[in-house]
Amino acid sequence: MSWIEDPEFALDKPFGPQTLPYGVLVTSAGPVVSVRVGRHALPLRRIAGSLGPRLPELVDGDSLDPLLAAGRESWRELRERLTEIVTAGSAPPGAELLRTDWHTLVLPFRVADYVDFYSSRHHAENVGHIFRRGSSPLLENWTHLPVAYHGRAGTVYVSGTDVHRPCGQRKAPGDLQPAFGPTRRLDFEAEVGFVCGGEPSGRVATSDIQEHVFGVGLVNDWSARDIQAWEYQPLGPFLSKSFATSLAGWITPLEAFSHARVPTPVPEHGLQSYLVESEPWGLDLSLEIRCNDTVLSRPRFADMAWSPAQQLAHMTVNGAPVRPGDLFASGTVSGPERGQRGCLLELTWGGAEPVSLEDGEQRTFLQDGDRVTLGGTAPGPDGSVVGLGEVTGTVLAVARR
Amino acid sequence: MSWIEDPEFALDKPFGPQTLPYGVLVTSAGPVVSVRVGRHALPLRRIAGSLGPRLPELVDGDSLDPLLAAGRESWRELRERLTEIVTAGSAPPGAELLRTDWHTLVLPFRVADYVDFYSSRHHAENVGHIFRRGSSPLLENWTHLPVAYHGRAGTVYVSGTDVHRPCGQRKAPGDLQPAFGPTRRLDFEAEVGFVCGGEPSGRVATSDIQEHVFGVGLVNDWSARDIQAWEYQPLGPFLSKSFATSLAGWITPLEAFSHARVPTPVPEHGLQSYLVESEPWGLDLSLEIRCNDTVLSRPRFADMAWSPAQQLAHMTVNGAPVRPGDLFASGTVSGPERGQRGCLLELTWGGAEPVSLEDGEQRTFLQDGDRVTLGGTAPGPDGSVVGLGEVTGTVLAVARR
Repeated sequence: MSWIEDPEFALDKPFGPQTLPYGVLVTSAGPVVSVRVGRHALPLRRIAGSLGPRLPELVDGDSLDPLLAAGRESWRELRERLTEIVTAGSAPPGAELLRTDWHTLVLPFRVADYVDFYSSRHHAENVGHIFRRGSSPLLENWTHLPVAYHGRAGTVYVSGTDVHRPCGQRKAPGDLQPAFGPTRRLDFEAEVGFVCGGEPSGRVATSDIQEHVFGVGLVNDWSARDIQAWEYQPLGPFLSKSFATSLAGWITPLEAFSHARVPTPVPEHGLQSYLVESEPWGLDLSLEIRCNDTVLSRPRFADMAWSPAQQLAHMTVNGAPVRPGDLFASGTVSGPERGQRGCLLELTWGGAEPVSLEDGEQRTFLQDGDRVTLGGTAPGPDGSVVGLGEVTGTVLAVARR
Repeated sequence: MSWIEDPEFALDKPFGPQTLPYGVLVTSAGPVVSVRVGRHALPLRRIAGSLGPRLPELVDGDSLDPLLAAGRESWRELRERLTEIVTAGSAPPGAELLRTDWHTLVLPFRVADYVDFYSSRHHAENVGHIFRRGSSPLLENWTHLPVAYHGRAGTVYVSGTDVHRPCGQRKAPGDLQPAFGPTRRLDFEAEVGFVCGGEPSGRVATSDIQEHVFGVGLVNDWSARDIQAWEYQPLGPFLSKSFATSLAGWITPLEAFSHARVPTPVPEHGLQSYLVESEPWGLDLSLEIRCNDTVLSRPRFADMAWSPAQQLAHMTVNGAPVRPGDLFASGTVSGPERGQRGCLLELTWGGAEPVSLEDGEQRTFLQDGDRVTLGGTAPGPDGSVVGLGEVTGTVLAVARR
């Protein structure tokens, strides 16, 4: 019986002792690195004395940066020590539990480089159909390598940050000239992000993902579809994505997903050896997308065609090192069914088939005031459930300059 | 008559008192922020007492980061004060001159986000011809907005850093399957980079470029053309570029180019108002590309179709703030003549027309051991010449894992 009295701190709840995500909570004393236990946060600085040698200095600051840099052995040790602490019968000296719903979180680390993949086959095929009518929806390279591009690290915001509707150029195929103004096709994309740490390294083998991926956080890759359609050729999406990307404030350690690992299907034509997995690194995550109070979709991450281990191996195969603070996201997670699609572009088939909200309204794309929330869970040990912190954001009108 | 006795410290030389670029020089006491005077560097920490109030703390560390963050008023003040100091008849107390050819430079600031434009019409047309034979070389959006994509900030290296030949997937149109291995089409791209600073800000007007651009440095955007051709659709170049981008170690202040400003041609169909320039921000820079000892090309930056002010306005028009340490590059600078093309892909027309080196060898793409150097100058006040620090790098064989 743990000293933590919180009905949400249980094996059958997402944030029981099997999960223990890290975040940076704003307290009256400033931002503090904390671990989440049920609906509470446990600031680590105050229990430093119980962490043993070396670990306190990794978590006594206002960000996860030192912990990310410290590498896998430290991640494992800290998690082990915290598991003992939160499941003990009595509280460690100095322990304080803060209600997560009474405090805000800040971005838990400095994002170094941000890479966004495109690894759901259903998503890529749907988007191909909608953006490139008439030509083959899946380009030839797609089954041979996990397609990706670099996004803007400086506009990765923590969950809860409002997102202003961006302005930009758009031009529909029938228009004579491009127009400028607020996007009319603002969308979300439900993605899973991987937070990197450890020694900067060149080529990373698929089997070494645990040396370089610290944890997992949900990502909403906000997208302006009209801006995207006009700008994206030939060098890829730019302003249609760079206005905002939301990341969950709680990052669940990769280690917590050891019971959620599933194989990734190998394409018929085989794979280059650097992309072959010796052990499965797909993850059986069940996601949920809500707009205001309506569940719009329930994508399954197990449907992805490329695993995070394959993504990391690809990202570094040219020798580019992965650094602490690098973030890579999976790309929109979409399943084969309509109710599993990960963005409005797909859910409404390019705006042609509106979705209904529970208040009776309809949406093709997002309106000002809409609140989008992503959640997710995975199977844990002994029938438990492992949670991913929610990522949420509300659309505001265009910002005044 | 200045106390600095250096024949290269003269108005008719690139690094006279009209230029004064900043860099971070490695000394026996560690890296120090320095200003370049001719073939010497003047470490600023040692003359802090002569800089007056407030400025010393911006330049007494081991990077330009504090100076970048400080903003335009500080940049202007420091340049004014340094101009007085280096043109005075006697040396300030503590001054020490270090030979630039005896010391190495480190990357002078922490690169936040790296954006690469595509703003030479000649380059875009040439590449379009080579990569997309049969279709229109210039896509419709190109004359309406400065096309760009995000690159990898973590692999921006200082001039002088060797570049290992990257591995990756490639597949020529006739191949049945993609192959994996060292790139066979390693290329350089001669570009001009703009280093940002000041208060992070949302939309930046073209007229406000001086508030947000600190200085100018040459960039070599190394590119693996075979990897690029196979990977780049639909989300743009990724591993073909992310293995290395070289940046000059000396960053010339934007203010030094006030006599080099030239208008940028306005396309016939006009521009969205946020891209209209009220004053000219094109720059009359003459570049030179050398491979080993051979001058391969002399591109003119004045030929660019989009100015850095337009690029910055575009990059931020969706509300994405520009942060200190952001770096944006122009894209390959190519002119209309063969001898003005900015990369081997164009110079050899996709490898079909080799170029000759002075040692009698020929090149289609780069070989291991090749050394590529970019240099550049601009007109300064009173007939003087303003220099850009060289960016150089040598190609090494594939790195062992």
